[in-house]
Amino acid sequence: MRLLPRLDLTALDDLPLDPSTKGLPFDAPYLRIGDVAAQGWNVLRGDLPLPLAVIRQDIVAANSAWMGAFTAANDLLIAPHGKTTMSPFLFDLQLADGAWAMTVATVQQLGVCVRFGVKRVLLANQPVGAQAIDACFRALHSSDGFELYCLADGQDGIAMLAEGARLNPPPAGNPLRVLVEIGFIGGRTGARSIEAAMELARIVAATEGLALGGFECFEGLLPSPEAADGLIDDVAMLSRLALDEGLLPDDGPIVLSAGGSSFFDRVGERFGRVNFERPVLRVLRSGCYLTHDSLGYAAAFHRILDETTLHLPPGGLEAALEVWAHVQSRPENGRTMLTLGKRDISYDAGMPVPLRWYRPDGTMTAPAPMPAGHEVVALNDQHCHLVTPADSPLKPGDMVAFGIGHPCTTFDKWSLLMLVDPDYRVTGAIKTFF
Amino acid sequence: MRLLPRLDLTALDDLPLDPSTKGLPFDAPYLRIGDVAAQGWNVLRGDLPLPLAVIRQDIVAANSAWMGAFTAANDLLIAPHGKTTMSPFLFDLQLADGAWAMTVATVQQLGVCVRFGVKRVLLANQPVGAQAIDACFRALHSSDGFELYCLADGQDGIAMLAEGARLNPPPAGNPLRVLVEIGFIGGRTGARSIEAAMELARIVAATEGLALGGFECFEGLLPSPEAADGLIDDVAMLSRLALDEGLLPDDGPIVLSAGGSSFFDRVGERFGRVNFERPVLRVLRSGCYLTHDSLGYAAAFHRILDETTLHLPPGGLEAALEVWAHVQSRPENGRTMLTLGKRDISYDAGMPVPLRWYRPDGTMTAPAPMPAGHEVVALNDQHCHLVTPADSPLKPGDMVAFGIGHPCTTFDKWSLLMLVDPDYRVTGAIKTFF
Repeated sequence: MRLLPRLDLTALDDLPLDPSTKGLPFDAPYLRIGDVAAQGWNVLRGDLPLPLAVIRQDIVAANSAWMGAFTAANDLLIAPHGKTTMSPFLFDLQLADGAWAMTVATVQQLGVCVRFGVKRVLLANQPVGAQAIDACFRALHSSDGFELYCLADGQDGIAMLAEGARLNPPPAGNPLRVLVEIGFIGGRTGARSIEAAMELARIVAATEGLALGGFECFEGLLPSPEAADGLIDDVAMLSRLALDEGLLPDDGPIVLSAGGSSFFDRVGERFGRVNFERPVLRVLRSGCYLTHDSLGYAAAFHRILDETTLHLPPGGLEAALEVWAHVQSRPENGRTMLTLGKRDISYDAGMPVPLRWYRPDGTMTAPAPMPAGHEVVALNDQHCHLVTPADSPLKPGDMVAFGIGHPCTTFDKWSLLMLVDPDYRVTGAIKTFF
Repeated sequence: MRLLPRLDLTALDDLPLDPSTKGLPFDAPYLRIGDVAAQGWNVLRGDLPLPLAVIRQDIVAANSAWMGAFTAANDLLIAPHGKTTMSPFLFDLQLADGAWAMTVATVQQLGVCVRFGVKRVLLANQPVGAQAIDACFRALHSSDGFELYCLADGQDGIAMLAEGARLNPPPAGNPLRVLVEIGFIGGRTGARSIEAAMELARIVAATEGLALGGFECFEGLLPSPEAADGLIDDVAMLSRLALDEGLLPDDGPIVLSAGGSSFFDRVGERFGRVNFERPVLRVLRSGCYLTHDSLGYAAAFHRILDETTLHLPPGGLEAALEVWAHVQSRPENGRTMLTLGKRDISYDAGMPVPLRWYRPDGTMTAPAPMPAGHEVVALNDQHCHLVTPADSPLKPGDMVAFGIGHPCTTFDKWSLLMLVDPDYRVTGAIKTFF
């Protein structure tokens, strides 16, 4: 399988940066994204206002490399979910580490991929609405060799795709590739039975302009790894049935795909049992591995390290994304308020985790680990309520680094995140497209 | 009290609009913000991809006018909290309706106000960190007659402000105006006793470059209107004490301020009892009234209408902000999936409320009210789980308008929201600065 080309980061660096963007200094000059690295900013020196979202560039690079090595060692491919970061700079890092495609959730996200040169996209949704479906077929014409996969889970949806193909036929040899989705009762999208999914596969295979690319599921909402196994096995079973029925084009590989960021070991293990007489692409779609987190995904990864039978490369995933805030007030014993709120950090998968603190008065050479007993108990729009022990060192003006749960919902609160080195010198900036 | 000048909307209209911005059509041309109105887009005609955040321009204008009339009729002023929308276009609407100042939470938000010409800002926080404090003093030099109020709740904080004033003295006659905050045990920021607050007031009054502007509280976290009364009364009592002690400058009015969007009637009623021998400015800081919502603030406003003894102008607040999504799939009886998720709409104060639906096939002339029995039970990052009755009319491709709870956390998910008329023709675009 050929690797995809790298992206056009020059186009990204040339984008203007609005001087009012959250994270920039007050009264910042007009800069381009690519100018940020040369500003010489240092977070610990107080060059930037807080709250500030930062990504440790060394850690994010190591996470990307780890996933590249993990998938390569286990005959897996990864189409990282781009919705998490919506950052072409990070997409490029993932492509450099061998990503087979970028996954997206919407045509706006597809548009960002097309614009910056991603040559294969997996739209992990049934596109709906004339605008979105037209966008898919226009994307197929966007450049030579651009490939697009999307999902279908019902006859209404496939009829909309068929109409889109009729209105704007794809180029010869480059159909819209459709993965039929298998779901489960009480779940999200996806056909609710093997029979229903096979019927959809037959319709796709018979529709001009569409090609059956394979099957997929999203197991991430299931309550346990064991519960995920059955759904993942359904994907393999459907592929076998469709192959036997001759529904899959002779000239292409068969795509089996699944994968959030919690159970990707199970996807690898179950797909690893598949042995067809035709090339099979076992495609993970995890997105949160890239920055990882300090809560749910950290726990999920520990389970994977403990349990999996897959090959594990050295090292592992670590949390790369932090949001820094100032201590604003210590209005009563046991309670500290910080300049951080729901506008700045995830709160849908656990409260932020205070990791480190720093007093910017020259007395500390580096941030110190946060002593035990500090716990975020509430977030308001712009305030963080931190319960603090009696001997807490914190005082107004101190800086605190918070780890996060669920990277997606921190990324989408920032149109600009700073890349930093281990000493919190700013090495670049990430523009997000939300 | 003079009204503030209107903002420079030309500068806003001239801002470039990145073509990959969520809400724009796939492969959109390069536009300026001010070009959007002329595109002739219509949401119901499917000209824009969904999800899409829209603001009914007629309703938001009526809400702004209602609050202007309400405050004027009750000897109140409003400094609307700009954090909610971070939209200079909407700030200008609020100034046109007589806003006394804009309230902000951070110096990034202050910077947006300064840039677009807001001449009086209430920073409803203690600024912390050298960057933020320096920004406050630089703002005082930004233009003739620019006034800045900020909060203080502790001696550490005031010491930081004093140091900022020493490093960058404010212009003669234009000190940094400080409102001392009174809080409550277990609450957020704010001195925890009358005595502590008075001591802070004395320190502010004695500090070069600072002036005691008055007192304030945030009552919005208290559990009931009755609980709010006591805290609001503390603000009045502190003002009386400071006046008697000669801590308030002779040449300025006394500011009493409070006010989220839930109990602003109580603020008006309690502050209405204040009768000093000096001019008093009774300043509300509500922000969510402007777009209002379909959940918590709607309920809070009904209570106000039922209970308040204040003068009520005709009409009232209505929900102006909606997020539209497509029905993506009806994978099983009773369950409908839509193209809307945590990235697109508030979920911290109740699940989105399905308001209306529309089938874009020419069979409906206008959206129809959503029949009873449709309820959002979960949101994933990019999906909405809607429980639907057996006779639900919805099918894939239909469009659904969702009302929201807590406007702040929907606004910050969109850098661009569309202004629409009652027929959902796009009449302009709002750029937000998050």
